[in-house]
Amino acid sequence: MLLTPSPLPPSHSRAMASAVNLHPDRFLDPDPAIRRAARELYDATSALPLVCPHGHVDPSILAENSPFPEPTALLIIPDHYIFRMLHSRGVRLEELGIPARDGSVVERDPRKIWQKVADLWYLFRGTPSGAWLAHELHEVFGVRERLEGDSAQHIYDEIAEKLKSPEFLPRNLFEQFRIEMLATTDAAADPLAHHQAIRASDWSYGKNRVVPTFRPDALFRIAAPAWQTEVRALEKVTGTTITSCDALITTLAERRQYFASLGGTATDHAVVEPYTMALAPELVEQLFQRARNGEATADDQRRFEAHMLMEMARLSTEDGLVMQLHPGSLRDHNTAQFTRFGTDKGADIPVAVEFTRNLRSLLNTYGDDPRFSLVIFTLDESTYSRELAPLAGHYPALRLGPPWWFHDSIEGMMRYREQVSETAGIYNTSGFNDDTRAFCSIPARHDLARRMDANWLGGLVARHIVEMDEAREMAQALAVDLVRETYHFPVPAA
Amino acid sequence: MLLTPSPLPPSHSRAMASAVNLHPDRFLDPDPAIRRAARELYDATSALPLVCPHGHVDPSILAENSPFPEPTALLIIPDHYIFRMLHSRGVRLEELGIPARDGSVVERDPRKIWQKVADLWYLFRGTPSGAWLAHELHEVFGVRERLEGDSAQHIYDEIAEKLKSPEFLPRNLFEQFRIEMLATTDAAADPLAHHQAIRASDWSYGKNRVVPTFRPDALFRIAAPAWQTEVRALEKVTGTTITSCDALITTLAERRQYFASLGGTATDHAVVEPYTMALAPELVEQLFQRARNGEATADDQRRFEAHMLMEMARLSTEDGLVMQLHPGSLRDHNTAQFTRFGTDKGADIPVAVEFTRNLRSLLNTYGDDPRFSLVIFTLDESTYSRELAPLAGHYPALRLGPPWWFHDSIEGMMRYREQVSETAGIYNTSGFNDDTRAFCSIPARHDLARRMDANWLGGLVARHIVEMDEAREMAQALAVDLVRETYHFPVPAA
Amino acid sequence: MLLTPSPLPPSHSRAMASAVNLHPDRFLDPDPAIRRAARELYDATSALPLVCPHGHVDPSILAENSPFPEPTALLIIPDHYIFRMLHSRGVRLEELGIPARDGSVVERDPRKIWQKVADLWYLFRGTPSGAWLAHELHEVFGVRERLEGDSAQHIYDEIAEKLKSPEFLPRNLFEQFRIEMLATTDAAADPLAHHQAIRASDWSYGKNRVVPTFRPDALFRIAAPAWQTEVRALEKVTGTTITSCDALITTLAERRQYFASLGGTATDHAVVEPYTMALAPELVEQLFQRARNGEATADDQRRFEAHMLMEMARLSTEDGLVMQLHPGSLRDHNTAQFTRFGTDKGADIPVAVEFTRNLRSLLNTYGDDPRFSLVIFTLDESTYSRELAPLAGHYPALRLGPPWWFHDSIEGMMRYREQVSETAGIYNTSGFNDDTRAFCSIPARHDLARRMDANWLGGLVARHIVEMDEAREMAQALAVDLVRETYHFPVPAA
Repeated sequence: MLLTPSPLPPSHSRAMASAVNLHPDRFLDPDPAIRRAARELYDATSALPLVCPHGHVDPSILAENSPFPEPTALLIIPDHYIFRMLHSRGVRLEELGIPARDGSVVERDPRKIWQKVADLWYLFRGTPSGAWLAHELHEVFGVRERLEGDSAQHIYDEIAEKLKSPEFLPRNLFEQFRIEMLATTDAAADPLAHHQAIRASDWSYGKNRVVPTFRPDALFRIAAPAWQTEVRALEKVTGTTITSCDALITTLAERRQYFASLGGTATDHAVVEPYTMALAPELVEQLFQRARNGEATADDQRRFEAHMLMEMARLSTEDGLVMQLHPGSLRDHNTAQFTRFGTDKGADIPVAVEFTRNLRSLLNTYGDDPRFSLVIFTLDESTYSRELAPLAGHYPALRLGPPWWFHDSIEGMMRYREQVSETAGIYNTSGFNDDTRAFCSIPARHDLARRMDANWLGGLVARHIVEMDEAREMAQALAVDLVRETYHFPVPAA
Repeated sequence: MLLTPSPLPPSHSRAMASAVNLHPDRFLDPDPAIRRAARELYDATSALPLVCPHGHVDPSILAENSPFPEPTALLIIPDHYIFRMLHSRGVRLEELGIPARDGSVVERDPRKIWQKVADLWYLFRGTPSGAWLAHELHEVFGVRERLEGDSAQHIYDEIAEKLKSPEFLPRNLFEQFRIEMLATTDAAADPLAHHQAIRASDWSYGKNRVVPTFRPDALFRIAAPAWQTEVRALEKVTGTTITSCDALITTLAERRQYFASLGGTATDHAVVEPYTMALAPELVEQLFQRARNGEATADDQRRFEAHMLMEMARLSTEDGLVMQLHPGSLRDHNTAQFTRFGTDKGADIPVAVEFTRNLRSLLNTYGDDPRFSLVIFTLDESTYSRELAPLAGHYPALRLGPPWWFHDSIEGMMRYREQVSETAGIYNTSGFNDDTRAFCSIPARHDLARRMDANWLGGLVARHIVEMDEAREMAQALAVDLVRETYHFPVPAA
Repeated sequence: MLLTPSPLPPSHSRAMASAVNLHPDRFLDPDPAIRRAARELYDATSALPLVCPHGHVDPSILAENSPFPEPTALLIIPDHYIFRMLHSRGVRLEELGIPARDGSVVERDPRKIWQKVADLWYLFRGTPSGAWLAHELHEVFGVRERLEGDSAQHIYDEIAEKLKSPEFLPRNLFEQFRIEMLATTDAAADPLAHHQAIRASDWSYGKNRVVPTFRPDALFRIAAPAWQTEVRALEKVTGTTITSCDALITTLAERRQYFASLGGTATDHAVVEPYTMALAPELVEQLFQRARNGEATADDQRRFEAHMLMEMARLSTEDGLVMQLHPGSLRDHNTAQFTRFGTDKGADIPVAVEFTRNLRSLLNTYGDDPRFSLVIFTLDESTYSRELAPLAGHYPALRLGPPWWFHDSIEGMMRYREQVSETAGIYNTSGFNDDTRAFCSIPARHDLARRMDANWLGGLVARHIVEMDEAREMAQALAVDLVRETYHFPVPAA
């Protein structure tokens, strides 16, 4: 009976809540020589600002600067990393208060949900979600007990109390977190009202603190039922009429400029397969018209996306926006769940990805162009050493993004460094990004990444592969320099 | 001249046998902090019972409880892990006494075979086969010399002597090994006479000590020459007539009940590709009739298997049997050897496997069903972090089986933990199984697994990722709790 | 602006050159127990001769024995490992003096090129290229400063000075490096004049010191524009007329004998996909005639190559030449660069490779043949544990080559040992080869490999998986025994 969490031995729920203090050397290699070097390197980067070039924080949080809601609405309901794991052990999303699309009744008592999460918190042992929430509770909210059944309500009270104080207003946390710059991810048709509001505010006036990222995916998915709606939304927000592919491209080009005018420096593109290919203009137009008639097939879409990636690269050489590519996630694998709860509910599952042949057209056309910059992410770790590191070690336009999603983890980061660095070097990578929609997890994620980079570099020092002075420069590069450089962010005055 | 083992330097055969004592800390990480924690964790699990939910021990061994034969027949001839390695260095299977199908002459002197194995035992350095046999010799048979040319005959004598004593009768070893429950793997048409005999014996009366597992693969391979024979065998053992696919499914459903009545809790399914897809009833019937006419093609079989996996999952929701899936082994790669010696001769070679798309139908239909439980194994380690951990971290019905076959090894187990745990957590895995046909290797295999789990958990403790009390619970879960839970085995009274 | 190297912080170019001494324990695991064992094992192999069965050193170097040119021409311009990395950060190949095919102007001042490399040398931190060059500078040329902007010209002078002395003549370095035997790689149509000259010289008279390897790839690429030219070259050097596939095979068979007569013991074959399949004679002839008419397609070539690999294996059973297979590199990915600069310019990118099915024909036909020996390499590390180790752990003819190209690195070698050894054992691997075209890097590459093998073996000892006496034999096997055995090289008199 899996939908009731399985009856593990009684020791798995404990009688007394345990005191907890995050260990200062947490995540660092226990070998004394490595830890000594890693500790020194981490100490040199831990206080550096957080540069956040890619993520999914809702900009309304910072536009409105209202107090955060109570703990469950803040930390559980929006976090698919957390509720997917509970679901995997048989907890229904309804029990966790995840709103159903049809408005049917789900659990509404936040304390009951919080209790359930705490009861099952042992499921997160050894996971990055576990590590991140431990950091949030301890470092952001000052909690000194371990989250478990008996401590649940007390911890809930403690956080709820804190959330009422001005210190915990979003903009105050932004500063307390030392965020230097935060990029959100925004649909091409998004009016960016929140970004405008932020820029108009005293808090951010004249500064690029919160910037948008241009994500036009929905307009390229010509076989999707929603495509026509997406085109109409773009028409509406831009005041244009889009009846040809040329018109679409012209509108996108202008829209990119608008994003750039609000501080945006990048675009983002998600596809299942990173196929790139320039099609003949009349063929592209045919595909476009097929889409307008609601007749585009999956294969039509595959070719249209391949062509539009080429177009996006071309526009990048003109407007200087950095192109990000996130391929290989098969979204909404669980159809029934998608129907009931919608997207981003923890059922996006990776597939194997081919880069060498798929990217050849794009890299042959733009990979040596000094005006072009492409950041590639992968969920298929077998491509790190086989395809991505050799490509990044050759094409000047190409940078590898940090370990993505499931691989943004302790072991995942070590595998990335070990499999990428010897062939691509660290200077063909783009530094860290947190990719989070959970605002309060930003410091936790950067802290973990800096600890792991220190760990990896400490291993190089302990094996005499690099000297300590070199490792120090590398740590600084990984923490902030490479991010600023890759995303064309300004270097703040010292 | 490879079929004569190659002339390595004389140092490779030595003049004097070496004394050997298994080191109490063998396999544990040498880092002092990790080893300290690992040692403590191993000490807490090493004496727990052995729960064996999947393996290939011949049940006649325990039904008959006769003395084991001499050492070569017990330890070498049935173990394809051992003779494949000798073959890979040019020893012919005939020289090792492996019986040829045509009855032609093979080596019959067990001491000569044993000597040859010992002479070449250095080939197993650093392999799990080497580690397991060392454990068997030392812990089961009390041998205190290293197996090599000069010690071969002496060790042979020592084991042969022991095998004659009552202590070494199979049931006595079963108890000495502290086996709690042992599942065998049995064809759907197997009459299970040995299982009946075991249950009727004083030794096991009223207890589920040795239970069958339902494996109907042969009935799904409609393109195989043996298919019709397999159907007839099933007809015979069940007293039915199977002239339609419906009749086949009905018979299988009843047969599953029979297996369950003898204590079975699971089914097992081996396919090359884990493709699942419900076909229209008339199409399935067409495929079935094509098979009856001996006309089914490889593609027919692929679709038939895909459909039958759906049917097996459906039946699992009704009868509660846990479904196990072992995909990705291309059996009998070496055709000439297969013709001469038959299956399971060390020439099964893995292929790359796709799970995300292949399992979608099955998981969309049954993956959220609280009555369903699916355990998946893989020989393609690139799927651990890319597909399997994300799937197991979402679908409640899905558990990941332990590292399988070639990956049931020191490094293989560490890779599994490191690549699976951060995304799926340990509580979506099914604990260990030994998967062995070598009865005397059961303790060796569990011991190695518990050491490696202690090692991995010790690393989490030493890096302050989990606390010691959590690690202790995790070690207990990995050693016994998760196995019992996954396979619906009863928890013994304390 | 990527083609100007990006503006990293000023700390990345430093004010003063640093003194540097290679640490005696470099690359070894910092864990005291592992390092102790590793150090002892390395000490036992570090002075053994270098056996070099596969590489790309130009034999004219040793035929002519002229002084090497100045440092840039010796160390930078021929080394695509180095200039690809600089190119990846925006340095144009012209700036590095790489000759363009059209003879257009490139940088000709070696000191200017050397300075640019030194300024950007930080890009190689943590890479094997960085480690190798550090070794060359320190151990071969006695340089005691770290290569960086400020030390560049001084180091240039130091090396240039040394290169003028007789000690640094190629044959003297060959001996100083303790090279036992060096195999080059040579096209089938190569007249091998340099090899003849070497064998005729006093230096090598009567000895197999420098031997050729037979590489007929170009003759199998029937869809390539150059194919007919290649056939004509073979006709010319052999004085034959090749108008049928039979004639081609006969000529190749004779040509193999010629290579063997000059000491060659092996052939080498590069394909994208390691597909093997014997075709009907009339079909092969059809493909051949299509090629003669310039009409062969990519698919024709795929089948022709598959057939010719079968033919090459057959010839190996007759003439005893060891067959090497290097699949999976998509050559010259960057078309514009290939057009301007030609092959081997750092733009060869791996693709995923399938071995289990592709090699089945060849291994079923020749894999058990005691006269046949096949060494397989891969750039797709996911095949190590999934396909290659199981195949090598079964077929007597098959040996796994060492980690190839990008994976001939610190982490790459550990991954190889960890993923291959438990299933294949070390005795189904072929030992190390340096695969280098950079003569002066040979000692660096062997030294790194011996350190990593010591490291890996030290880990086995520290975990009590093997005893120290076994590890010593294994270290010796990996350093020299297995190479000599695999490649049929003579064992020198002690």
